[in-house]
Amino acid sequence: MDSLVEQMNTFFEPKAVAIIGASRRSMKAGHVIFKNFVINKQRNLFKAKLYPVNPGEKTIQGFPCYASILDIKDEVDLAVIVVPAKFVPDVMKEVAQKKVKAAAIITSGFSEVGNHELEKEVTEIAKKAGIRVLGPNCLGVYDSKTGVDMLFLPETKTLTTGDEVVATPRPMAGPIAIVTQSGAFGAAALDYLAGKQMGVSKFVSFGNKADVTASEMLEYLLHDSKTQVILFYSESIDNGREFMKVARKVTCKKPVVALKVGRSEAGARAAASHTGSIAGSDKIYDSAFKQVGVLRAADLEEFFDMGKALAFQPPVAGNTVAIITDAGGPGIMAVDECVNQGLNVKRFSAETIAKFEKLKSEGKIPRFATNYNPVDLTGSVTSEMFEEGIRILFEDTEIDGIIVLGLHHLPALQEDFVDRVAELRKKYNKSVVACDVGETEMALHIRSRFDKFGIPSYFSPEDAARGMAALVKYGMYLKKCGQFDAYVASFMKRKNML
Amino acid sequence: MDSLVEQMNTFFEPKAVAIIGASRRSMKAGHVIFKNFVINKQRNLFKAKLYPVNPGEKTIQGFPCYASILDIKDEVDLAVIVVPAKFVPDVMKEVAQKKVKAAAIITSGFSEVGNHELEKEVTEIAKKAGIRVLGPNCLGVYDSKTGVDMLFLPETKTLTTGDEVVATPRPMAGPIAIVTQSGAFGAAALDYLAGKQMGVSKFVSFGNKADVTASEMLEYLLHDSKTQVILFYSESIDNGREFMKVARKVTCKKPVVALKVGRSEAGARAAASHTGSIAGSDKIYDSAFKQVGVLRAADLEEFFDMGKALAFQPPVAGNTVAIITDAGGPGIMAVDECVNQGLNVKRFSAETIAKFEKLKSEGKIPRFATNYNPVDLTGSVTSEMFEEGIRILFEDTEIDGIIVLGLHHLPALQEDFVDRVAELRKKYNKSVVACDVGETEMALHIRSRFDKFGIPSYFSPEDAARGMAALVKYGMYLKKCGQFDAYVASFMKRKNML
Repeated sequence: MDSLVEQMNTFFEPKAVAIIGASRRSMKAGHVIFKNFVINKQRNLFKAKLYPVNPGEKTIQGFPCYASILDIKDEVDLAVIVVPAKFVPDVMKEVAQKKVKAAAIITSGFSEVGNHELEKEVTEIAKKAGIRVLGPNCLGVYDSKTGVDMLFLPETKTLTTGDEVVATPRPMAGPIAIVTQSGAFGAAALDYLAGKQMGVSKFVSFGNKADVTASEMLEYLLHDSKTQVILFYSESIDNGREFMKVARKVTCKKPVVALKVGRSEAGARAAASHTGSIAGSDKIYDSAFKQVGVLRAADLEEFFDMGKALAFQPPVAGNTVAIITDAGGPGIMAVDECVNQGLNVKRFSAETIAKFEKLKSEGKIPRFATNYNPVDLTGSVTSEMFEEGIRILFEDTEIDGIIVLGLHHLPALQEDFVDRVAELRKKYNKSVVACDVGETEMALHIRSRFDKFGIPSYFSPEDAARGMAALVKYGMYLKKCGQFDAYVASFMKRKNML
Repeated sequence: MDSLVEQMNTFFEPKAVAIIGASRRSMKAGHVIFKNFVINKQRNLFKAKLYPVNPGEKTIQGFPCYASILDIKDEVDLAVIVVPAKFVPDVMKEVAQKKVKAAAIITSGFSEVGNHELEKEVTEIAKKAGIRVLGPNCLGVYDSKTGVDMLFLPETKTLTTGDEVVATPRPMAGPIAIVTQSGAFGAAALDYLAGKQMGVSKFVSFGNKADVTASEMLEYLLHDSKTQVILFYSESIDNGREFMKVARKVTCKKPVVALKVGRSEAGARAAASHTGSIAGSDKIYDSAFKQVGVLRAADLEEFFDMGKALAFQPPVAGNTVAIITDAGGPGIMAVDECVNQGLNVKRFSAETIAKFEKLKSEGKIPRFATNYNPVDLTGSVTSEMFEEGIRILFEDTEIDGIIVLGLHHLPALQEDFVDRVAELRKKYNKSVVACDVGETEMALHIRSRFDKFGIPSYFSPEDAARGMAALVKYGMYLKKCGQFDAYVASFMKRKNML
């Protein structure tokens, strides 16, 4: 029997894939999925063999079509099943006969709608044959590197105006893996990350998890060199003990951010009718996640905000943060949220305050700048002031992380303050997150410039504080399990920051 | 003595404005401000008289320049003061001699940096002469209708590449007024609202509030027919009793959303060093706001989200909400946040459930759609299903408000579902908020389409729930003060929804 990693790997790096239910009809899921693979083959991204299976067709997209998977002469290791639910047992029998290693059942209409018997029948056929099953009722897998793309959601849609627009983008390659129970949520996450130009390594939607569990996927991703941060969306976790064991292993090496929904009773009821699973008490999840180092997000936005911070910057060794700003009000907002997140925004040391006073006396920052934490460079701010001010914070060993609020509106501030902050960031081993507020050109430009330098940027001071809190919380956990230095070293190596 | 409304009106609708400290030098605040007025005169937006005052110049931007305000022969009712702090007392003496009615002191360097004496000196000169003073240390006023624009933050900036980009936009005319203690925050708010294409009636940044207070501005805005929703950013409120009296009057007619920062001790300390004011206990603010019907936002994003809901939709008569979705996971997120906000997401009535069952038996919605609340139309959703489903919710008199989660990714869903929901919304007097998750073309298109129909759209299910919660909370308050029907009637009349 293959190891877990080998088993799961078949879903992401198959040698030969059969799409059972491939179709010529453009509105069919089996059409979209087969076309994804064909396009990725043309792009030379998907390099494995590809076989459409459909008894009603001779060819699809120029590929000879097989009536049954058994008609394919060569070996097939992965089957993607997109036929109506009632046909799945018979299809699975043939898949078993073909000695396929893994099957993704995209089809819905199983336990999520009360058809427990049908799901059990299918699972048992697979189990006897040693086939690992993803789904049913799922979106399956998207892998930015191998070109496996089972998403039946078309990449573009045509509006009534006739315009074709991006509808479900596939993000570029990057460090974030998405593991999701809900397919629709997964699609939305891809859309969000692509739009924010954040890269994805692997995406897996496991739906009813009749066989492959979230825990197995997490364990697999622990061993996946392309994945650095795991975003995990869940409505219910079935085998809590197993999950905790695996999560503990994973979180010492890679951060796992969880969005576990169904917090409220009404929400849990809704979750139960969504995937047919019972959600369990929210407090139990909360304390279990804490125990095993899974970082829990309060809502959708925080989920992405935390993921972004952890993908861009190394975790932080302590909970003392400094805030430097050119706008008093947003500075206070950041303080409030830092305190809410348990971070320490303490007054700077006498030495650091003296350094700021020196800058003032030399006329390098405004005489009336405040320097107790936050540092408020005031509306007279220039790029040079940001550079001089933040250098002092980098030098202060009591400060673990820095939040930069660079509101671009002030007249004398030029966009090169971003470059200056990034340049200094390179010299010092201290994590930075940034914020600029606004939705017009300059704000988007400043935020994207920070992002390009690897400093995660946020649209609100509170979001930036939440990003920093993720770095602090993960850092504290890594220290607890004695992995902080090893993680940071590998992170820095990866980012070529050393 | 003029009434309060007349006094405040001089800041927004002056007959003749002197810009004292107008400058030819492009980096000077006095240049940017004077140029704002000149441009708005050219656009025929600013129709009052305009006088630059600067002893060092003969003309500025083609306007004859005066050495002193006393050299202007005609009457001047508003002075905008942008000279260095130490010159302000002498300038104010001349302003008093000229019998100006109102003065906005943009200049900083007063009590916010410990110069209490200087601020007192200036305020007393003004007081004796019966001049109302805005500021000092503020951005002053922006009025989208009269073209008064004291913002010294240039509308565009030039990047190092030579590209000119929008930096501090002035939003189009609209129903939202911004009252802010922090100027930088105010600029960021303008940037956000302009970028989201939300209109602003009036903007006022009052800085150190040496004379004109937040309470006076709120009372003025109560009488301003252009303003329908007030967004109020505050770090401290000095005369609590007065504020509560005024707020009580205002909130029975217009919603006031407050972002009161300095919640934490560290935040309050930062606030104190920002505008020199003491923030007071956060719990006191919380309970005072609740008493007088001011809706408090938890953070920057919620502040805007609440304002958007209240500007777009009428408040809601009860706290029972229905959620209709095409994506299970996001539906659960919305439920969780609704419950967190105190809304009631109860199981639908037997009658409503029967209606959904009938739709199922007729094949108009999927057989496996769940219909207990949320209604989950599943991945097979079409525009027709949204229309049929939401019609039932509109008809159910137990339901006070509706949250529509229309994730566009699903293959058979066309963008006209937005039009169908909006069309039904017109027929029924029930508030709706919407959400589509994603950051690429189609998501932006769907959200902006909802907005155009007057249905506020949000990027996350939780944000949508918070928008709905604002409508519920304000509705409950209006009921308490017996103004619900009157408010809704005037809202509907305004929106031509009747």
